[in-house]
Amino acid sequence: MFRVELKIMPRKGILNPESSTVTRALKAMGYDKVKGLEIGKFMEFVVNLDDVKTAEAYVEEICKRLLANPVIEDYIYEIFPLEEE
Amino acid sequence: MFRVELKIMPRKGILNPESSTVTRALKAMGYDKVKGLEIGKFMEFVVNLDDVKTAEAYVEEICKRLLANPVIEDYIYEIFPLEEE
Repeated sequence: MFRVELKIMPRKGILNPESSTVTRALKAMGYDKVKGLEIGKFMEFVVNLDDVKTAEAYVEEICKRLLANPVIEDYIYEIFPLEEE
Repeated sequence: MFRVELKIMPRKGILNPESSTVTRALKAMGYDKVKGLEIGKFMEFVVNLDDVKTAEAYVEEICKRLLANPVIEDYIYEIFPLEEE
């Protein structure tokens, strides 16, 4: 079993409406010290597999096929062995 | 100047429709090894302030007032000094 931390961020240069909306809201509230805000997704999950190579290939595949949009997003993940309870 | 990495996750026990939808989609595609999927937000930004204590208080305040919903979300952040270009 492995615990996975997956970060999915908008690709540099891709317009991110959510980031600009939040930046504008912060400015409207008087918080104008925030620069270059980027908003993405963070996922945590467990993969019920036995070896790390299989787990890596599995995570790579679910990122490519479902979790991340390769056209507009970059993804990076870390895999940690999970002590079986 | 400081670079901030902010992770905002749904509080444990709070129903997260996005996580259950993605888990079901993964299962429908044959990926049934994923357990306990949690989906949250990841934000990266720079704060244009001079000292770390001020920056920490600033980030704490914008989290509480706008970026995170304290009723249903937990947040955690890391602050890194940024070399001025």
